[in-house]
Amino acid sequence: MRASVRNAFLAGAILAAMTGKAEARPQWLIQVHGGAGVLERESMTPERDAETRAALREALEAGGAVLDDGGSALDAVEAAVRVLEDDPHFNAGKGAVFTADGRNELDASIMDGATRQAGAVAGVTRTRHPVTLARAVLEKSPHVLLMGEGADQFSAEAGVEQVDPSYFRTEERWRQLEKMRAREAAGEQAGVFDKEVKYGTVGAVAMDREGHLAAATSTGGLTGKSHGRVGDSPLIGAGTYADDRACAVSATGSGEFYIREGVAHEICARVRFLGEDAQAAADAVQAETRALGGDGGVIVIDKDGGAAFSFNTPGMYRGRLVAGAEAMVGIYGDE
Amino acid sequence: MRASVRNAFLAGAILAAMTGKAEARPQWLIQVHGGAGVLERESMTPERDAETRAALREALEAGGAVLDDGGSALDAVEAAVRVLEDDPHFNAGKGAVFTADGRNELDASIMDGATRQAGAVAGVTRTRHPVTLARAVLEKSPHVLLMGEGADQFSAEAGVEQVDPSYFRTEERWRQLEKMRAREAAGEQAGVFDKEVKYGTVGAVAMDREGHLAAATSTGGLTGKSHGRVGDSPLIGAGTYADDRACAVSATGSGEFYIREGVAHEICARVRFLGEDAQAAADAVQAETRALGGDGGVIVIDKDGGAAFSFNTPGMYRGRLVAGAEAMVGIYGDE
Repeated sequence: MRASVRNAFLAGAILAAMTGKAEARPQWLIQVHGGAGVLERESMTPERDAETRAALREALEAGGAVLDDGGSALDAVEAAVRVLEDDPHFNAGKGAVFTADGRNELDASIMDGATRQAGAVAGVTRTRHPVTLARAVLEKSPHVLLMGEGADQFSAEAGVEQVDPSYFRTEERWRQLEKMRAREAAGEQAGVFDKEVKYGTVGAVAMDREGHLAAATSTGGLTGKSHGRVGDSPLIGAGTYADDRACAVSATGSGEFYIREGVAHEICARVRFLGEDAQAAADAVQAETRALGGDGGVIVIDKDGGAAFSFNTPGMYRGRLVAGAEAMVGIYGDE
Repeated sequence: MRASVRNAFLAGAILAAMTGKAEARPQWLIQVHGGAGVLERESMTPERDAETRAALREALEAGGAVLDDGGSALDAVEAAVRVLEDDPHFNAGKGAVFTADGRNELDASIMDGATRQAGAVAGVTRTRHPVTLARAVLEKSPHVLLMGEGADQFSAEAGVEQVDPSYFRTEERWRQLEKMRAREAAGEQAGVFDKEVKYGTVGAVAMDREGHLAAATSTGGLTGKSHGRVGDSPLIGAGTYADDRACAVSATGSGEFYIREGVAHEICARVRFLGEDAQAAADAVQAETRALGGDGGVIVIDKDGGAAFSFNTPGMYRGRLVAGAEAMVGIYGDE
């Protein structure tokens, strides 16, 4: 997969060069993910396969339209993530998983590589688009991270769209919680890091026409998670990081390992201090996180416009759109 | 200050070498901090100067006793931070500052450089020693970060010492909140990043006889902070990081800038990828954080036993104890 994706990207760069661009860097590009996990052809219905690919494509197009119009990478990643938050197939916004006590608690973060300004929220319950709330924290609050009730309160005051908590509920997610509760009642170890779990976090990374980078991530966390557990998605440096001098990263996976590794910041550190490109840095940090015990994936765009997916799970919902090229979306490890 | 401190440390290393140790690395060492800020001789009473120095010394001795007995760096940093949490002079545990709505909300984190296991809590209200709760999260929870009510609940279940929320109150901290409220009522911009504020977070870093590293940080946050605001102290990679391959860091300062820079992780990345020592890496990252607008300080011990303080405020409560040497404590920038 990786080799072919990279070749496709290089072909795009060569095409850009042939059409008169002096630089190898594409005019703009955007990548999205919708979570990594045990995603295999045999367990996927044709409908779900088609619907999730369509949603990834729609997210890329929403972000791509912003970039093509000369908009910022920050606007583009927010636009892309909002599409995935609205889609019930992914574990973010509508369709988020339930906590152990039957609630939807949402986390999101966003970072601007040009200024290294960032905003994030953890455990919010009434905001339709948590990524837009993270953006409001970035722009309207002196703080970077707000959690719980205080974040819900800020959301209402900041004028971000509010919904009743029941808005997030889907029957599929409720059944997943009931299944987990039944397993626990039967004395089976449910396991927070159940191998079957899909890390259905969503995210986006983008480079705009000015060469600025941005990253955003949004999630409902883990099915049956403990009250108050915070994963990597709302943590700047763990699930999300963007720095114009290095790269933009959004991660999805077993959050605790991603926090301990500092995955997003570590990938940027390798690009900046070791001169690695997006793929080399992403693969190295994924390997280290795997050694700690962590599964998942990342999407990365480096300062030279290099783009990477890297995951150690059977599959990852993912997509890439480069200026002047066709959108590419994938789910399984072999495509 | 920096040069003389470094020379004092080198003298200790030379002494170790003369006494038959092949390596330049000391047998063990520990550093603590009690916050950075506008700490100047003219505004400090002789009593406060003496009492805070005594507390820093007591914290060093508590951690040093663990290390001298062959205990782990992880045990040592916990022991040192507990002393500072109990001391009302510092903004952690007893003596924590009040939030805008008159509560004490405590944050802490701890990390083991040998395993890169970590634990952290944000916004807890009934735990006497938040650092010990962070340690319980590291050891007894599958998670790294717990926040709010869920963290309070875990604390009670984990058997960590509980206190009534009134335990944390001191009259001095209450007056600080009233003063801030009065300024706000008078229409003055209170400013979360008030230049006069002391970032009274506490922390410790240590290296044990086996060469393992650990770091811990504990805080009451900012006076008058918004409900739900999370600073850098409970965030692995921002306020705290430890990695045997690089270094151990505890930070204190304007938390939002420390999160955006990923200060603790960034210092470790420079040590690991650029080969810098503790002082060079700490100074470089402090300068970058300053450029973003952030004030504060860090304490660092690198994998070779190199030790650094680095701060861009007029002063920082700080101390260092190296095996076989006298404890050193300081407050102002010129000592």
